[in-house]
Amino acid sequence: MKTMRHIIDLSDLTEKEFADLYKLTTNIIDRPEGYTDACRGKVLGSLFYEPSTRTNLSFSTAMMRLGGSVVGFSDPGSSSTAKGETLKDTISMVSSYADLIVMRNPREGAAKAASMYSSVPVINAGDGGHLHPTQTLTDMVTILRLRGSADDMKIGLCGDLKYGRTVHSLLHFLERYHNVQVYLIAPEALKLPDYMIRFLNDHSMPYCEVNSIDEVLPELDVLYMTRIQRERFVTAQEYKNLEGSYQLTAEKMKRAKKDMLVLHPLPRVDEIAQDVDEDPRAVYFRQARFGMFGRMALLLTLSKLPFIRAGHQEIGAHGVRCSNHKCITKTEPYLPLEGTPGSRCPYCDAPLEMLL
Amino acid sequence: MKTMRHIIDLSDLTEKEFADLYKLTTNIIDRPEGYTDACRGKVLGSLFYEPSTRTNLSFSTAMMRLGGSVVGFSDPGSSSTAKGETLKDTISMVSSYADLIVMRNPREGAAKAASMYSSVPVINAGDGGHLHPTQTLTDMVTILRLRGSADDMKIGLCGDLKYGRTVHSLLHFLERYHNVQVYLIAPEALKLPDYMIRFLNDHSMPYCEVNSIDEVLPELDVLYMTRIQRERFVTAQEYKNLEGSYQLTAEKMKRAKKDMLVLHPLPRVDEIAQDVDEDPRAVYFRQARFGMFGRMALLLTLSKLPFIRAGHQEIGAHGVRCSNHKCITKTEPYLPLEGTPGSRCPYCDAPLEMLL
Amino acid sequence: MKTMRHIIDLSDLTEKEFADLYKLTTNIIDRPEGYTDACRGKVLGSLFYEPSTRTNLSFSTAMMRLGGSVVGFSDPGSSSTAKGETLKDTISMVSSYADLIVMRNPREGAAKAASMYSSVPVINAGDGGHLHPTQTLTDMVTILRLRGSADDMKIGLCGDLKYGRTVHSLLHFLERYHNVQVYLIAPEALKLPDYMIRFLNDHSMPYCEVNSIDEVLPELDVLYMTRIQRERFVTAQEYKNLEGSYQLTAEKMKRAKKDMLVLHPLPRVDEIAQDVDEDPRAVYFRQARFGMFGRMALLLTLSKLPFIRAGHQEIGAHGVRCSNHKCITKTEPYLPLEGTPGSRCPYCDAPLEMLL
Repeated sequence: MKTMRHIIDLSDLTEKEFADLYKLTTNIIDRPEGYTDACRGKVLGSLFYEPSTRTNLSFSTAMMRLGGSVVGFSDPGSSSTAKGETLKDTISMVSSYADLIVMRNPREGAAKAASMYSSVPVINAGDGGHLHPTQTLTDMVTILRLRGSADDMKIGLCGDLKYGRTVHSLLHFLERYHNVQVYLIAPEALKLPDYMIRFLNDHSMPYCEVNSIDEVLPELDVLYMTRIQRERFVTAQEYKNLEGSYQLTAEKMKRAKKDMLVLHPLPRVDEIAQDVDEDPRAVYFRQARFGMFGRMALLLTLSKLPFIRAGHQEIGAHGVRCSNHKCITKTEPYLPLEGTPGSRCPYCDAPLEMLL
Repeated sequence: MKTMRHIIDLSDLTEKEFADLYKLTTNIIDRPEGYTDACRGKVLGSLFYEPSTRTNLSFSTAMMRLGGSVVGFSDPGSSSTAKGETLKDTISMVSSYADLIVMRNPREGAAKAASMYSSVPVINAGDGGHLHPTQTLTDMVTILRLRGSADDMKIGLCGDLKYGRTVHSLLHFLERYHNVQVYLIAPEALKLPDYMIRFLNDHSMPYCEVNSIDEVLPELDVLYMTRIQRERFVTAQEYKNLEGSYQLTAEKMKRAKKDMLVLHPLPRVDEIAQDVDEDPRAVYFRQARFGMFGRMALLLTLSKLPFIRAGHQEIGAHGVRCSNHKCITKTEPYLPLEGTPGSRCPYCDAPLEMLL
Repeated sequence: MKTMRHIIDLSDLTEKEFADLYKLTTNIIDRPEGYTDACRGKVLGSLFYEPSTRTNLSFSTAMMRLGGSVVGFSDPGSSSTAKGETLKDTISMVSSYADLIVMRNPREGAAKAASMYSSVPVINAGDGGHLHPTQTLTDMVTILRLRGSADDMKIGLCGDLKYGRTVHSLLHFLERYHNVQVYLIAPEALKLPDYMIRFLNDHSMPYCEVNSIDEVLPELDVLYMTRIQRERFVTAQEYKNLEGSYQLTAEKMKRAKKDMLVLHPLPRVDEIAQDVDEDPRAVYFRQARFGMFGRMALLLTLSKLPFIRAGHQEIGAHGVRCSNHKCITKTEPYLPLEGTPGSRCPYCDAPLEMLL
């Protein structure tokens, strides 16, 4: 990882870069005491424009376990900066204090935008519904560590496959492995979107779509559960009906393979019953811990890169605008935006459209 | 302290364990520079489900003075976790990151519940009106350090003896010492509850109830003041009348022993007049500092214990429920609850009742 | 800096003390790795009674880069202490935990009041519209570091010169240098107040007042920009008219000296156009970084001072009161207040008046 400065999407990493990152992660897991001072004297700027206690704690703990320190804010309410100032200025300011920046922001494309004005590496800790690379890192470390490899894996993805950002990112990354078979377990209203189906087809990843966990459970090597948000359904009854098909219970686990892994990005609601927690195959809390170790490896790798000041002089849009109303360019109008209508927004990947 | 993993109540400590803890505290007080790296590389998870700046700062400072780090949240508003998730899952997650957990929670019994799902030691920093062991530790360190012993002590407890959790905990702990004489100084409406009076009788602790500080001040070795909350009284006049009897002033202090100690758990309102602060017998701010040292000793002791994963598989209640509507079992229904009606709730100590 | 304990106003420093502080700052800038452990084991109490993310992050980062730790609160909402307790008690408590205190408070004179009850050094991080010494330190370090000296400097001050606390403090400090020529660039409604004009006259500092940046830009060695708050104007049109005269753009910069420095205390709104940012003369983000180094030097200097307990016994006012309704004495009535009507308040410097 010599030239990369920012982590906007995990798929930005080359195979070699990811292999190095995973190797460092396992070294830290096996010998954490060897890294107690690895980032001593370094300061992480942790900018959470919306609360995300889990991700926030994971990054902070990771930095502290490396001997580094953390400053920042954990929600916009306690931050005067987050309110009255452009993202550009906040990032310019924080990158003049800190050695690394981690940012969570509700606007899609915000991480890419921030990286353009930062003189230190920026890690995307979630930009709206767009990307969340360290969740995918968490998932991959868990699979690789507990299963040895992601090759020849039968993985079931269950729950909200439509809006579930983590599922899309994981599928994007799994494309790198051989013979991954995908089982899509979702109600009609929450099926994997067309563009993701196209992605699977384009990369020759075999998949099938099913209507309940039961249909495929005995086949699976990994079951990746996600939360189904109650508010996505019209009636409580409708929701109740679905629960039976997309909820995992200790009873159902009896039919699963002895070494199947159950993953979940957390927090869960009730898609995994409490009685599954004591099953050794339920590794979602260990997954959280692996995520912390993965983040330690990432922070350590980036903190050792040489300092290169970013330089971006273009201002404003040139004849086009982004079609996504959640895009960061909607609230930060100075961001440079070039391209032809129909090409991808450089921030959030949505199509550009003609500026009227 | 070999087997104990969690600190829910200070009375859980054996005499030997407490003696060791106090000895370590005094060592830290006398030579703080010897402990600068004692918890280096350790991370404290600090979970405050309601704000308590004083306790929060004390624990955080204690951990930092040992060279450790602190992550967590200081009020539920800035925590996404605190809202959407069971206590069990939050604790499972945080204990996968941190080496120790300190928790403040408005539900009674929450500390016990949390300890069941934590893979690291949990310290109760207050569970509603139930227990607050490190306040009692603070009080005891102050008395022992400044007086040498709690034996043969005449202690006056003044203010709100009905709702004052700290007073009850202190009395429970003082039972271990010889010949402690208790003066209960409270208005009628805020007298010590019957079950605490029974406790004093059961443990042969001599006590008397009086109506003003003046009546007993010259007798006392220690005067433990507590806050009287204005809102407990119907009229402002009623409150005013009480003030004269239960407020300590520089004038009154003239009649006290030359070496009497004035303690207060803080914050105070006006039950101790500002003009008392400069009196060397007014040790409440030193008490806060002793509390920090006591917490350092506690954190250090627990951080050295071997890692033992808790295992609790029982789910839900079995024919009984807790009679206390503030009990943690009311909001976390998966918590195992066994016993017969009339026996004590394992979380909050209130009586169990038949589940209808 | 042998006897000074608190930093309420930067002008409290003698020339020698400031020279030492600046020398230490430059040493840290040139060799930051030499200070990684300089405050190891020390704890900074950071008390922000109103949010100020920028100042807060700067102090926290400064302490952490010295190897120290930070505890405290960043806004009153998350602090139980900030609400229910006198400033005196909060400071007594925090100074029993921490080695240094940094405080931001909306009441004028609050820093002076806090220093009276603290057993550790207090640094004023802004007390209402009164003083903000580390902003002036930031400005001075930037000028001295990038220009070599403040002597023989032509400095333009642009924007809100009426309410701009930073401008007043900077002028007070610049009085120490030789031949500083001041250009006051402000709209009629926001001109420098009479008492500051008197200050310039009293100290023989030459100045002129002008109506737009353009008039004087080619003359200036330093241009100090400040924010004009939109809400100070009656109509949007009125505001728009002003913008042309008091906004800096890349176009205007063409007429400025090749080595002119543009400073700004930040955050900016639109008084400096985005297109100025890439100009190497625009040093406001470097200024933020210099501020962090200045604060490191200050924290390090104060942390090495011997411990001297403050002692203040006087209580309440003696026949006078402060005429400033934002003064800390209005909310903390126990503060001692002596003097004759017309003399200066010892906290906020406003005139005292007869107590009726």
